[in-house]
Amino acid sequence: MTSNINNDPTARMKSYIERIAAGPKMSKNLTEQEAEDALSLILNQSVSETRAAVFLIAARMKLETLEENIGYWRALHATCENVSVPLPRLLQIADPFDGVTRWPYFGFYAIPLIAALGLPVYGHSSAPAAPKFGVTFEELLIGHYQIPASPVEAARDRRLAALEQFQFSYLSLRHTHPLLDRMASLRSEIVKRTTLSTLEKLLIPLKAEENFLASTYFHKGYEVPMTAIAALAGFDTTVIGNGMEGTSLYGVHKPARLFRAVGQNPAEEILFDAGKTFAPETAKKIASACAEIKNLPATAPAIVQFGEEALESGSGPAAPLIACQAAALSVLFNQFDDYQKAYDACMDRLKDGGVFESLQGYLQFLKNE
Amino acid sequence: MTSNINNDPTARMKSYIERIAAGPKMSKNLTEQEAEDALSLILNQSVSETRAAVFLIAARMKLETLEENIGYWRALHATCENVSVPLPRLLQIADPFDGVTRWPYFGFYAIPLIAALGLPVYGHSSAPAAPKFGVTFEELLIGHYQIPASPVEAARDRRLAALEQFQFSYLSLRHTHPLLDRMASLRSEIVKRTTLSTLEKLLIPLKAEENFLASTYFHKGYEVPMTAIAALAGFDTTVIGNGMEGTSLYGVHKPARLFRAVGQNPAEEILFDAGKTFAPETAKKIASACAEIKNLPATAPAIVQFGEEALESGSGPAAPLIACQAAALSVLFNQFDDYQKAYDACMDRLKDGGVFESLQGYLQFLKNE
Repeated sequence: MTSNINNDPTARMKSYIERIAAGPKMSKNLTEQEAEDALSLILNQSVSETRAAVFLIAARMKLETLEENIGYWRALHATCENVSVPLPRLLQIADPFDGVTRWPYFGFYAIPLIAALGLPVYGHSSAPAAPKFGVTFEELLIGHYQIPASPVEAARDRRLAALEQFQFSYLSLRHTHPLLDRMASLRSEIVKRTTLSTLEKLLIPLKAEENFLASTYFHKGYEVPMTAIAALAGFDTTVIGNGMEGTSLYGVHKPARLFRAVGQNPAEEILFDAGKTFAPETAKKIASACAEIKNLPATAPAIVQFGEEALESGSGPAAPLIACQAAALSVLFNQFDDYQKAYDACMDRLKDGGVFESLQGYLQFLKNE
Repeated sequence: MTSNINNDPTARMKSYIERIAAGPKMSKNLTEQEAEDALSLILNQSVSETRAAVFLIAARMKLETLEENIGYWRALHATCENVSVPLPRLLQIADPFDGVTRWPYFGFYAIPLIAALGLPVYGHSSAPAAPKFGVTFEELLIGHYQIPASPVEAARDRRLAALEQFQFSYLSLRHTHPLLDRMASLRSEIVKRTTLSTLEKLLIPLKAEENFLASTYFHKGYEVPMTAIAALAGFDTTVIGNGMEGTSLYGVHKPARLFRAVGQNPAEEILFDAGKTFAPETAKKIASACAEIKNLPATAPAIVQFGEEALESGSGPAAPLIACQAAALSVLFNQFDDYQKAYDACMDRLKDGGVFESLQGYLQFLKNE
């Protein structure tokens, strides 16, 4: 116990803000333990909304140390769902929780395809959140497919049961982290992204025997704390990259710098460029699909229309992008060892309509109870 | 009109926060006009408390440009009382509005003494405010002397009438700037000082023919925007210094660096050291008074006890400090041309008890209506 860790939450938060909000030259760092305490106070609503917002924006403006990021993550981890699932391997796809607004993104439809390739997978997201309020996995499920959202516990249990049955699912912060989910309106008041936007993509609400994470970084440099924390979280293999509009659709709009970390080892940097990784004919299809979708609106109806078209018959502009994303992740997480072979397998699965049926079955399953 | 100045206050504030809160390397500056708009939105409660707090802490952590400070000051100035008073000259003493907590400070009692030397003067302060919540002029008046605080308009009118009658008075933000006064609890939630702490000391609620300001800076560097803004405000002569516990009792606990600006001219730096400025015997008295009061509590009862003792008979540890402060300000604002002569005049006034009677008369006057 140090003199700063006293029993008065208000005094503790005051002391943390005094230190981190002193400006570009005079701000002091918190210890890992202090950072964990600070975010715990915020999550548990032991301090006012205003003071929580002041802390969060100051923590970001100061720039977090690795110790602080680990402390903040520990506070989130301690209050996150922690469910063991009887699967040998499980991939979490964690795209930015504020969704996409510039280009339609079909990651929602890549998820059942990845499962069809033999790798169990779930998407972790939330209702559209600040600052972008774009389309998320959850927005497609609730807003478009009208999956029942409440009662929350029953909905969560159904999503988990569906994962075992279909080998893929989607989870929301509502299910995995109610305390963080409750902070959505406060985070909207803060305007800017805070450390929460980085760390919510590193939660591990489900635990299989082997755990994989595919996620994203906003700015170069964040891959360092992100891969360190993902290892701490228990992910056996983590890939962090800067894909299209910040998603895990890597390397289609420009070459992506991926950071792939296995266990506690330092991350290996991989330059992933769809234009060079796949055979020329495939690369051309991906490039022209990419050019085509840039003219489509990033709305749920457009995403659903082209996503379903791809899953039904392997046709339309979404198909090469969905196959590219699924193929890349399958290789990065050792399900395939060759990108083009993985891509071909993806196109076969899309063309036979089996993935579409699987998604329909999943949606029916969620609606039936 | 630029594209950022649209009619939606929420969108405007969002855009301002996006720019200033991007962190140590990527934050952008606001124009003077944008800064004025931002603080106007906050003062008028056109944005949420949380968003106001986020803006204010981000503005400080980023460090304000001169343009931003001027813009913020313009927003405050536009919503400040603006009363002409029929006096040839008028000095405002603006010590930090969060008061003193370390050492008893007797500036409250220096004010009637300065008036007795022939320079009309008022103290501008507020109820004890964040972050220190120390003793202020207003705390002594309301908390200790039980001067009626409401109805606010009647109280303000009485304070103004008393200025003409007694040649000194005290005003609160409650009277001079209700919109800023209303932000006290929000400012307390922010924990750290914001630009408001600097700029409230540069308001000019009363205007005489010639206007003087004695105020203070927290950190070296602030004297530049402060003297620039004071000139803009219409102060003919401004002195900014770092006195005891950040007050305008300059040069007693250590040599003070004063910045004295006349009109629009650049400030002249003056090293003011009571130990060298006054005759040795006087310097010794000031030094031993300073040593003595450091052992006294910085509470209203202690301040009143020793302050009144000084005014009644020129005795006790507060007397040399009150005389030193009044003498320094009298010379800095050209009422006297010699520090020692001014000090001797001060001690004469204290010893004859006239200043005490004047303060009693002032307090009676405020109570009688």
